[in-house]
Parts: sequence; C-alpha cells; structure tokens
Amino acid sequence: MKVLFTYDYGAAAFQRVEALGYEVFYCPEKLVHDFEALDQMEILVCYNPFERLELHRLKALKYIFLSSAGVDQVPKEEALSRGIRVTNNRGGYSVPIGEWVVWTILSIYKNAKYFYGNQLKHKWALSTEVFELSDKKVGIIGTGSIGQACAQRLSGFGVECIGFNTSGRPAPNFDTTYAIEQLAQIVAACDILLVTVPYTEKTHGLIGEGILEAMRDQSVLINVSRGPIVVEAALLKALEAGKFLGVGLDVFDQEPLPEDHGLWQFERVYLTPHNSWVSERRNERRFETLMTNFKRLSEGASLVNEVDLKRGY
Amino acid sequence: MKVLFTYDYGAAAFQRVEALGYEVFYCPEKLVHDFEALDQMEILVCYNPFERLELHRLKALKYIFLSSAGVDQVPKEEALSRGIRVTNNRGGYSVPIGEWVVWTILSIYKNAKYFYGNQLKHKWALSTEVFELSDKKVGIIGTGSIGQACAQRLSGFGVECIGFNTSGRPAPNFDTTYAIEQLAQIVAACDILLVTVPYTEKTHGLIGEGILEAMRDQSVLINVSRGPIVVEAALLKALEAGKFLGVGLDVFDQEPLPEDHGLWQFERVYLTPHNSWVSERRNERRFETLMTNFKRLSEGASLVNEVDLKRGY
Repeated sequence: MKVLFTYDYGAAAFQRVEALGYEVFYCPEKLVHDFEALDQMEILVCYNPFERLELHRLKALKYIFLSSAGVDQVPKEEALSRGIRVTNNRGGYSVPIGEWVVWTILSIYKNAKYFYGNQLKHKWALSTEVFELSDKKVGIIGTGSIGQACAQRLSGFGVECIGFNTSGRPAPNFDTTYAIEQLAQIVAACDILLVTVPYTEKTHGLIGEGILEAMRDQSVLINVSRGPIVVEAALLKALEAGKFLGVGLDVFDQEPLPEDHGLWQFERVYLTPHNSWVSERRNERRFETLMTNFKRLSEGASLVNEVDLKRGY
Repeated sequence: MKVLFTYDYGAAAFQRVEALGYEVFYCPEKLVHDFEALDQMEILVCYNPFERLELHRLKALKYIFLSSAGVDQVPKEEALSRGIRVTNNRGGYSVPIGEWVVWTILSIYKNAKYFYGNQLKHKWALSTEVFELSDKKVGIIGTGSIGQACAQRLSGFGVECIGFNTSGRPAPNFDTTYAIEQLAQIVAACDILLVTVPYTEKTHGLIGEGILEAMRDQSVLINVSRGPIVVEAALLKALEAGKFLGVGLDVFDQEPLPEDHGLWQFERVYLTPHNSWVSERRNERRFETLMTNFKRLSEGASLVNEVDLKRGY
C-alpha cells in the first residue's frame, strides 16, 4: 500500500514502515495539496491538511492516520460516505497535557506572574495572595485519556476529582463521576473546572454564559481541548467583570490568537499557543502508535485508536 | 503561665489560650525587644526576634514555641544550658512547600518564562523547548515532612523519588533511600535534585562545587530549605558556565536578596522571596499546633514537634 506522510519522521523510521511492505511517500503538510501522486495514495498520515486539500482528490484513500488527538478537522461527511477509516493519536499527548494542566493550576494558585514580574525588577516582595490546592474540588469534563492523566497527576495533592462524561459512568482516577447534564448544578461546588472533552457538535459552546455564571467567583477555568467549547465572548465578559482567580487556555476560537485579542491582556489569564501537547517524547510516542497500526493493518487485525466519526471521537 | 505572642492571632484565638489557664501578652516581633515585662514571660511564641532580643533578658523563660519549621535562628548554647524547651512548626508548611516544589519543577520543564514573556508581547510562538516529567529521577535531600510532601505530590507523575537522609532508612512516599554520604555518586543519575533538609552544621555548604559538578548538565536544582546549604558562589559559577535546565530557589544566603545579586538575572532561575510556605491556611494550621501544645503542657503531657537543639531539628 502507498502511504503519504506529511511529517518527516526520518529515514530510519520510514525504513521500518517499508520493511512491513508499505511504499512510503513524503511531502510537507503545507505543500501536500500540490503533491503529484495524490490520487494513488491509500493511507494519509497527517495532522490537518484539509483546509487546502480536498479529500475527493485522494481517490484511492482508505485510511487517515491522524497525529492529533482531536479529529474535528477531518471532512466528516465525505470520509463517512466513502468508508475511509480514521485513527487518531488518542493517549499520545495525555502525559504532557496532564502535566501542563497541573502546572497551569499551580501557576494560578501560586501567583506566578507576580513573582516573575518582580524578578525582572530585582524586587524582593512577599505575597500572601498565594493559595494551596489541598482539599480543593476539581471538576473534569471528559473522563478519557487526557482527563484521566490530569486526575492521576492531581491525586497526590489531596484534591477531589469529579468527572463528567456522557452517561456518568465511573472512570479510573476519578473520585466521583456525573452525567454531563448535571454540570450546571455540580460546577457551583468546584474550585477548578478542566475542559478535556473532545470537540463535537454536542460540546460546541458547552461552557457558555450559564456555566460561567454558575462557577464560583474565585474559581479556576482551564481549557486544553478546543477553543469553541468555551464561548470566548462570554468568557471575556466574565473576566472583565472580575470573575475567576485565574484562567488557563491552550486553545482558542481562532489560532493563532490575533494580536489584538482581549485575552492576551489579563494578568490572571495564563495562555500558551496550543503547545500543551509538546514534549521531547512526542515524536517517539506518535510514531510507535503509527507502527502498531501499520503492523496490524498488514496482519489484517483491528486498528488501535480507530475513531467513530459519527460520534466525533 | 505567662505567654508572650509576637504575632496577633486575634482576640478569639487568644481567648482559647486563656481558657486553658494561660495569661496572654502580645507584642509585635519587631518591637518585642522593648516589651516591658520580658523578665516575667515563661513561654515565647515567635518566629525570629533573636537578632535584637537577647535571650538572657527572658529570665523566666521555659519554652519557645517557634512558628517556623527551621530552628537555626534560636541561640542554641544558651537555650541548651538553661534547659529551655523548643518546639517548631514541623509539618505546618509541608503542604504549600510541596506544592511550590512541583510548581517550580513544572515551570522549568514547561518553559514558563518564555510563554509569559510572549503573552506580554501578544506574541503567538510555539516552543519545542518543553519537556515532560514522566520517568524522570528525582533526588530529595531530607526525607522528613517536607521531603515526603514533595514525594507524595510527585507520585502521580510517574517519576522515581530517591530520598537521602542520615542513615539511608526508608521513608514514606520514597521509592528508594540512601545515606547522605552517597549523594555524590547517586546525584549523577538524577534529573532533579530537591533540597528540603534542615539547616545544621552538617548541611552547611552541602551542595558545593563537588555536588554541582556531579549533577547532569541539563538537570534541575531546587532549594526550599535554607540558603547556606547551597554554596551560592559555586552555584553562580555553574550557572554562568551554562549548567542546568533550571534552578528554583526560595531561600538565599542573604535575605532579602540584594538588588544587585547575580541570581536575579538568569531566565532559567525561578526565584521567590522565601514565600513557598505561604497559603491561605498558614495561620489556621500554625495556631492549631500551638493549641495542641498549650493543652498538652497544661495536662503535663509531652509536647508535639519538640526540637533536639543539639541535633538542630
């Protein structure tokens, strides 16, 4: 089978794929819409080339192996109608994202920017605006791989982890779980709310005015999933009204976040440029998952991390 | 018994002490050397008034109840010769200090200052200089309350916690423990080294040129104990030579750290002004420990957190 990679994993890695009987092609994702032999490719290994690459040009395509955990970038209707199978990198970024979440919560609780600002000025000034995480209640929307990684890393801090998923079913590392319908009631008791859920039609705008109002004044909101799950206009309004001890965001409606966007300016907003998934092990983990599926495909076995496009994850 | 407090816990708190039969006096620590009835006080509840308050003026003193975990500020010779008993706030700051340590490690691994600097400039710029804590080796000097609190909070991150204490005896939350004599050999295998040990004659200058040289080039050093345990001149030299992924310091040889001190300037040094112990629950925890000892003293029971001044903790 012909495989088109849009990321260069290196000659050694590509040889491992070829040793399994695949024919490997490579073209950078930014240029892939100009790749000549598109119509012969049967497997596409990519992140998100779909803004400029129309899926119908890949006439022979049977599989999309995504390097992302989210799958919302895939042209869903066409992939479904053509029976193109999609796998994602579920779990592949959970470790760094879980660490990012704990880092960001602690940065807010420990008043990080105050101390960095003072260091730049060589200024020794104590602060009592420093809080502890112990005994706090953490609501985590999404009890999958990323939510579990967050809950696991929070377990040593003596917090209560409350998970929200579609049915309220139990999940590893969570103290309790509720169905997402109960979010509005339960969130009022939470000190911290983490958004780790996949982006789907159902989660679009989930954290709107209603949930934001129900949250405690001095609470913390963190989003590591996709921007549009939180209604940015409502969030900005709440921030301008003085709400929140702090907000941590790695994802936004529009990325890159425009230079004149209101979110940049708040001292109590901690933001990074969709960077929470990065670690020195990102390529190694991602490639090993790909290798697993190349092996399984050549053996006729079921794929790992296969996505139900109808459901959206 | 007459008790002199140098911190105002408030009328309600003082009434609880009086209800146990004590006579309560209060004078701010900065002014306590001018307090009139010093010679009648039998218990002194304080942090560090000893620079201006000579112990021999407290002729009737039987107990010093310290609000700090460290005890190095107490005039040791005189307290020992007069049989003055000393208690500290052992464990009282372990929760916030444990959280501070994880926050600082993650800030270094996640390249915090790069992202804060970019936010100030409204600049969207990804970084691959972001690392994960997973599978790292953490050496923790001191396996007492603070060391254990650090190890407990690190337990969810999939790291290996290696403790160092006087004998190498096992301690809760640690994967392995070694005698401190083995530090120089073991430290070469550590990605992170935490200093949480009490400051004594034995730990003065413990982290000098030898240990710093033995540490890995891209390792992390954290000190939340007392400044002089780390030889500052040797640390500055190592930093200037490009050593360390990052260094986190809450304590210094001289506090406040002088404005022209070399440590302020390093982007990869994360420093706070002896502030790691602060949390919104600091007074509540400290006062409850004091109440325990007031009760025990009036019942003739043994005191909690009594310090062996000869040993220094």
